[in-house]
Amino acid sequence: MRLFEDVASQVDDPFFARALLLAEKGRGATAPNPLVGCVIVRDGAIVGEGFHPRAGQPHAEVFALRDAGAHATDAEVYVTLEPCSHEGKTPPCTAALIDAGVRKVHIGMHDPNPIARGGADVLREAGIEVAFAPDPEPFAKLNSGWLKRLAVGLPQVVAKVGASVDGHLSFAPGERASITGSSGARVTRRLRAAADAVVVGAATVIADDPALTVRDTDGLLAHRQPLRIVLVRHHVPAPSARVFTDNAAPTLVLAAEGAPEAQLSALPVGVEVERFSAGEGFEAALRALARRGLSDILVECGPTLLTVLVRKHLFDELVVVTAGGMAGASAPPLFLGEPQCSGDTLVHDLAPLEAGIVGDVSITVWGPARGGSDPAA
Amino acid sequence: MRLFEDVASQVDDPFFARALLLAEKGRGATAPNPLVGCVIVRDGAIVGEGFHPRAGQPHAEVFALRDAGAHATDAEVYVTLEPCSHEGKTPPCTAALIDAGVRKVHIGMHDPNPIARGGADVLREAGIEVAFAPDPEPFAKLNSGWLKRLAVGLPQVVAKVGASVDGHLSFAPGERASITGSSGARVTRRLRAAADAVVVGAATVIADDPALTVRDTDGLLAHRQPLRIVLVRHHVPAPSARVFTDNAAPTLVLAAEGAPEAQLSALPVGVEVERFSAGEGFEAALRALARRGLSDILVECGPTLLTVLVRKHLFDELVVVTAGGMAGASAPPLFLGEPQCSGDTLVHDLAPLEAGIVGDVSITVWGPARGGSDPAA
Repeated sequence: MRLFEDVASQVDDPFFARALLLAEKGRGATAPNPLVGCVIVRDGAIVGEGFHPRAGQPHAEVFALRDAGAHATDAEVYVTLEPCSHEGKTPPCTAALIDAGVRKVHIGMHDPNPIARGGADVLREAGIEVAFAPDPEPFAKLNSGWLKRLAVGLPQVVAKVGASVDGHLSFAPGERASITGSSGARVTRRLRAAADAVVVGAATVIADDPALTVRDTDGLLAHRQPLRIVLVRHHVPAPSARVFTDNAAPTLVLAAEGAPEAQLSALPVGVEVERFSAGEGFEAALRALARRGLSDILVECGPTLLTVLVRKHLFDELVVVTAGGMAGASAPPLFLGEPQCSGDTLVHDLAPLEAGIVGDVSITVWGPARGGSDPAA
Repeated sequence: MRLFEDVASQVDDPFFARALLLAEKGRGATAPNPLVGCVIVRDGAIVGEGFHPRAGQPHAEVFALRDAGAHATDAEVYVTLEPCSHEGKTPPCTAALIDAGVRKVHIGMHDPNPIARGGADVLREAGIEVAFAPDPEPFAKLNSGWLKRLAVGLPQVVAKVGASVDGHLSFAPGERASITGSSGARVTRRLRAAADAVVVGAATVIADDPALTVRDTDGLLAHRQPLRIVLVRHHVPAPSARVFTDNAAPTLVLAAEGAPEAQLSALPVGVEVERFSAGEGFEAALRALARRGLSDILVECGPTLLTVLVRKHLFDELVVVTAGGMAGASAPPLFLGEPQCSGDTLVHDLAPLEAGIVGDVSITVWGPARGGSDPAA
């Protein structure tokens, strides 16, 4: 997910644009399923709309057909992802579309999911006209995390770090610090709301004791909360930490083999603990999350996690939230690794994807650079 | 000057927008004069255009009147700044407009310069209709440096710093480092081209030996070069430094009282040396530059200059150019001052003005925060 990008504005067709906007309403809530939006059009006017709100609920097409009622007969359908043709938790959407008597189905992109794909062929065999969008790219962006998980068995990882202008995320190591203020908190809420799970290192829980919840502007808990995940290697946070005791959302502890068992077993009932191989590192932990059907992971980084994610190329987007102040030369470093240089030239292995301002903070989103760096002129 | 802003787009009137675009053509070359653009319109069509190209050359109105020729009679004139009414290096523009027989003059904003203002009244007395633009703001932005110098006797200071994502501008103190690469060099060229003078500290000359020139994409020197200024406190760069020997542009050494005289007098003939009171600090040096008629100063900062400018509130815009790489925890700090915190909260005394991407670098422009900081939520 991009902070400043609107995929709906990237399609020319207004019905597809509306379907993309509808799909976005499910953001953060549909795992392990993709986001899907659907509109039904007759005589040039929208007669039905729907989106997939969360796993176990009906698919977007079903909501849109219900909304359209008898108007669906002979109508054209715009759906962001190929309708499924398999019986899962809900009946196949292809059957629903055929039963409703629609005339034509416009599809944003093919469904690559091996158990669900083939819906377009089923529709064609039933005599329904099928057309794919000329450019699948905006529809793929909508579900970039889900598509990555299907393709490589890893979730999409958005790493977030807050820093001062001079590149520090606190004033002293291991101490609680509020660097990015209320504007930074707004950005964090938005990123959490879009994530299936929020990961922090144990050091962050020990220093800051965050709740890791999504709250509205009045401070009320949002209906849907991402899974909270605490990564433990050597130190286990106290059982009294908010993520273990506030019951605001489920919490999972991902513990590297060798993490202290006595402290892990002292955690409150209801806190799930899963082990991953320490030798395989954080990638093994991410694979475990993908196996749970989690597609979009937000990692709220301290310096240790940031260094691992950047050095091991385990992130898709790095969101740097910069606050307008200086933390001073004695503040601890943001990045703990070795310099990334070639002679006297900094190697640019991150490329800026987008930049913007939210309130009083500046945001740059970086991705892995493709095709090498841009050396000095 | 903003990197991502277009003042011409901020006026509704297309003739004023064109006049603003014309004025921009003089950017960097008009000191001690302001930028001015002018268009002459008859029967709804532009019949003459002009801008002030540099001090000593005719003003924008004169070029536009020459361009219009006989079409100026009974025409309407759009000029970004009130026409001057005084005899300076060139005759007053009010006389030229009256002689040409124009019918109406639209003026972007009043001229606050005590020796040149009052042009609107002179035109009215001659029977010419005068109208001011409804919003002077875009016209003031065009000449923000010049207006600041007239108002407070200080130039507008744009501080530029290049850094890695983890907030370092080099790998080791005092060593040459290319952090921001060719995209950073493009940004620097653009900032230099818009400046009347480019300031660096002696440490930068000693470590990097920069030419501080404006070159085109083929590496050829631009026709107009900003004044190069080296700030000296304790250490004087070698007389063989490029800024002292390449004859590409004039170079001024601003030396604090107490700087080593023997080394200053060893500098090549043609390098001007001006003293400023060390006790008054960098502000005294800036006042000296304003007295020379320099309105727009670019400071290419190392950590010492950046720390002084931020701590003494001596900058108007801080351009942070961030390259997509990590310099590592052992790299020297960007900012040398004490932490800027209130309890465990970073004080935000910089506010983001604009953010964007140029090639493979990200840019945030910060200004002094007005009305306090934004504490943690």
